[in-house]
Amino acid sequence: MGQTVSHVGFIGLGNMGRGMAANLLRAGFRVSVWNRTPSRAADLVAAGATLAPSIADAARADAVATMVADDKALEEIVWTHGLLDALPRGGIHLSHSTISVALADRLAAAHAERGSTLVSAPVFGRPEAAAAAKLFVVAAGAGDAIDRCQPILDAVGQRTFRFGDRPSCANVVKLSGNFLIASMIESLGEAFALVRKSGIDPRQYLELLTGTLFNAPIYKTYGGIIAEERYRPAGFRLPLGLKDVTLALDAARAALVPMPLASLVRDHMIAGLAQGFEDADWSAVAALAAKSAGLEP
Amino acid sequence: MGQTVSHVGFIGLGNMGRGMAANLLRAGFRVSVWNRTPSRAADLVAAGATLAPSIADAARADAVATMVADDKALEEIVWTHGLLDALPRGGIHLSHSTISVALADRLAAAHAERGSTLVSAPVFGRPEAAAAAKLFVVAAGAGDAIDRCQPILDAVGQRTFRFGDRPSCANVVKLSGNFLIASMIESLGEAFALVRKSGIDPRQYLELLTGTLFNAPIYKTYGGIIAEERYRPAGFRLPLGLKDVTLALDAARAALVPMPLASLVRDHMIAGLAQGFEDADWSAVAALAAKSAGLEP
Amino acid sequence: MGQTVSHVGFIGLGNMGRGMAANLLRAGFRVSVWNRTPSRAADLVAAGATLAPSIADAARADAVATMVADDKALEEIVWTHGLLDALPRGGIHLSHSTISVALADRLAAAHAERGSTLVSAPVFGRPEAAAAAKLFVVAAGAGDAIDRCQPILDAVGQRTFRFGDRPSCANVVKLSGNFLIASMIESLGEAFALVRKSGIDPRQYLELLTGTLFNAPIYKTYGGIIAEERYRPAGFRLPLGLKDVTLALDAARAALVPMPLASLVRDHMIAGLAQGFEDADWSAVAALAAKSAGLEP
Amino acid sequence: MGQTVSHVGFIGLGNMGRGMAANLLRAGFRVSVWNRTPSRAADLVAAGATLAPSIADAARADAVATMVADDKALEEIVWTHGLLDALPRGGIHLSHSTISVALADRLAAAHAERGSTLVSAPVFGRPEAAAAAKLFVVAAGAGDAIDRCQPILDAVGQRTFRFGDRPSCANVVKLSGNFLIASMIESLGEAFALVRKSGIDPRQYLELLTGTLFNAPIYKTYGGIIAEERYRPAGFRLPLGLKDVTLALDAARAALVPMPLASLVRDHMIAGLAQGFEDADWSAVAALAAKSAGLEP
Repeated sequence: MGQTVSHVGFIGLGNMGRGMAANLLRAGFRVSVWNRTPSRAADLVAAGATLAPSIADAARADAVATMVADDKALEEIVWTHGLLDALPRGGIHLSHSTISVALADRLAAAHAERGSTLVSAPVFGRPEAAAAAKLFVVAAGAGDAIDRCQPILDAVGQRTFRFGDRPSCANVVKLSGNFLIASMIESLGEAFALVRKSGIDPRQYLELLTGTLFNAPIYKTYGGIIAEERYRPAGFRLPLGLKDVTLALDAARAALVPMPLASLVRDHMIAGLAQGFEDADWSAVAALAAKSAGLEP
Repeated sequence: MGQTVSHVGFIGLGNMGRGMAANLLRAGFRVSVWNRTPSRAADLVAAGATLAPSIADAARADAVATMVADDKALEEIVWTHGLLDALPRGGIHLSHSTISVALADRLAAAHAERGSTLVSAPVFGRPEAAAAAKLFVVAAGAGDAIDRCQPILDAVGQRTFRFGDRPSCANVVKLSGNFLIASMIESLGEAFALVRKSGIDPRQYLELLTGTLFNAPIYKTYGGIIAEERYRPAGFRLPLGLKDVTLALDAARAALVPMPLASLVRDHMIAGLAQGFEDADWSAVAALAAKSAGLEP
Repeated sequence: MGQTVSHVGFIGLGNMGRGMAANLLRAGFRVSVWNRTPSRAADLVAAGATLAPSIADAARADAVATMVADDKALEEIVWTHGLLDALPRGGIHLSHSTISVALADRLAAAHAERGSTLVSAPVFGRPEAAAAAKLFVVAAGAGDAIDRCQPILDAVGQRTFRFGDRPSCANVVKLSGNFLIASMIESLGEAFALVRKSGIDPRQYLELLTGTLFNAPIYKTYGGIIAEERYRPAGFRLPLGLKDVTLALDAARAALVPMPLASLVRDHMIAGLAQGFEDADWSAVAALAAKSAGLEP
Repeated sequence: MGQTVSHVGFIGLGNMGRGMAANLLRAGFRVSVWNRTPSRAADLVAAGATLAPSIADAARADAVATMVADDKALEEIVWTHGLLDALPRGGIHLSHSTISVALADRLAAAHAERGSTLVSAPVFGRPEAAAAAKLFVVAAGAGDAIDRCQPILDAVGQRTFRFGDRPSCANVVKLSGNFLIASMIESLGEAFALVRKSGIDPRQYLELLTGTLFNAPIYKTYGGIIAEERYRPAGFRLPLGLKDVTLALDAARAALVPMPLASLVRDHMIAGLAQGFEDADWSAVAALAAKSAGLEP
């Protein structure tokens, strides 16, 4: 059984990471932070964090958390910039990023070889939820390592769901969750195109949906965007959505699972990028459905 | 302005219709019922309903409600068996069935020509909701006619959503709603196939979904069926689901709206019928996704 | 065994029918023609045809051929305007139109009941092929009836393919053939969009395709239209293509055969109609693929 | 202007490569061969080839041709095992393999940096065509480099199609060509499922197709396999087909081109692998269509 985690490195201070690191400080952890653009760490340093001069320095801790954009960014941090070598034996790498299942598997093996441990812990929630410590955490990895990290997870999220001891299972769950959201967007896009062309008021239609069968917050959020055609500014940009659906399809191919709906959504996302929605929210897939039906924005 | 509706004819005493007619009796309406198999009316007659000897007799009322299986059944009732001729001038036909947009339009025109009025009022909810007067009603048609029917709608449902004065708009809304449910089933089917083949426990996965982003009753209902592969007995049979998605596609074609996700779901429903799921719940579309991935039931 | 067919009624003098009727005259048949717009029969009358004053008059022959636009047109001719009643017992109805499998089955039953016979004989080929007697004929129905019609089929086509004694099988073959052409168009549309956006000359690409693996005339015809974006004037209009793919899907649904590629093409055809390609050739499905990829026409 | 190519290295002696190398010998080139399993080179050595002890040795030539299974194999040959370093300045790398567009671009840049040149020259044709020097060659790269290689290309193929000076364009053409074949297989699979379930003889149906509109050899080859359900032994295995369609989709994503039909075929290929067709021909996608329709093999 490992010891208590008190010193945490935190790498990646984007919109999500900053809120999470701030919550670790609030919860009493000693936190060393690192970011590619160090200026983004100012608030955290003012709140008590140490600015690590390098990734390796940030990784010399009981646990090091990473929250970065994609596989490439994480690979560079781990292999090129030395996280893997700097993390002490017995240390834990807590990976919050939405990365591929294949990378999670490779990373788990690399840590095992060096005597450290990977806990994969991607999260559901937008930046506001990260700031408010209201994230949902999906965790997988060695049980005792997750136990040791639980205080960290409790500090950043409202609830942790555990999915066994293979770290990449957490990534499968995260990616499939994003696929479900993307599918919901596609279905709403097609339904709103139909009701609009039938002369029905989209706001009334949304009220019906969210007042009856589909009364989940996510339908309200995305249904509202679609009913009002408010695709900019983006909450979660279309290229990121495409990245995640592509990662879900990659995982599905490896597991030999056909996912025709994921493929359909992916094609519409690509069409969206080809047609000028690169800066829009991923729900702009619904704008494509409207355009395809000849509706003017 | 028409008079108060006190005498209601009710045609179609299936699992939905019987609960609805019983609630009309409870609410104090005078009710004449008709069903192809008259024995199904016994309980209602015992509770105070009159058994109409013919459809025409049932239609000699202030309003006549119909709740039947499909377009063909309604066409026979209205044209072949005389509902249209028997309904008095100024009378209202309250159509609760899930029928095509095209039929709703034809029916509205036929009533207008004879001085009667169509109110299209399809409902969302299963038989238990019908029995408990908890249906959601989607109503469209002339405003004063809906006003006159409102006491009826209040007696059978928990809430009425109005969609303007073109009756068929209510059918567009109903069909698009069923399309959204079918899409949700397809997306869950693919996601569960992926998590299952990745070695993740489907019940835990469901708990995550319904405990976080997708905490709507409908996700619990269908997610539960899919996680436990409990496709029989059917709550809503696959052939009926195929009928509804096909009607949504028919409406979409008429309105020139491509609905590729509806097409995808329809193909999987047809595959389901071809592979022995005719008696299963329409959520068996998820069983197809599992089978397609090589999973054993 | 029936007698020789010498007197033929011919109903439907569109671009296809006129060429076919002219070839019957050339082959020595006595031909009575009927068309909704009688003026279109002038050339044929000059060439020796009799102008029938009514459909019933045209149907009083050894065999009556029909070549009309769709199910509705044929239903009116057969039932409303009396072809069925006027055709003598032992007479043959030679149906060349591209109609639904369901209508072919209904028609076969109606003829059988009255002592006449349906031979379903849809054709492959464009108006020029009809004029040149170069059509390919797909025939199904009672063997002796087809034998009796063979001189007619020989007069209008270059070859007849027989598909057994159930007339509607010929319609399945015809509709599936048009589905194959539509699929080829879709695949070419996507491939050309990819090569264009990759900076490759579409004409050179077409030369490769038709010079190697895909050296069939149909690839040359449609590949040429797509490479040059020559979608107008239409050889076969998009709404007709949509009609045929929809009929193929209707037949597939009845036979419980999922056809996801047919569904995909159908959705693109609907998008085409919604986006202004109603007057274009059905190969404009390829224009949609280009537009979807952000290419300018 | 470079000098004449007389000495050629040839790496990769699979079913395709052996036939190609043999034809180079026949044409009078001096050929050094290398293969992972050297015993496969025996016949070629007997015919006059030199067995190179290493990849680097094979690459010390005027031009080095590679014909290997996939990106990974080529990357190892080029970077890990030294082809890039060994090829003399002014030398040509003639890449015949079906590789990704991204790898072709990377490879072109790497050669340019070192003073050598990439000519990308994938081929269409099966092993028998390779043995008979009947391949179709698709070539792209610097014009003078292709000119210098033309005698090599003439020795292995019946015709060369040039696609400009960006090498990866040849790969786009090759991958899109394989996508067209895969699409044709899918469309035939669906059409045959429909005709079979309609009671039509598949061989007669094939005779119609290949005797009329679709009289290209490729329809005969694949139509024959599908009509007779002869998916084993494989001419081109399903996993290779999946690889190629996936590469086409990767290229399409990079170019921002949605290819929904490619996605559909890919899903069916994955389903095929999940359902036991790993050792079957890629046309087993048609077997999936039949299975999906409930047909027994």
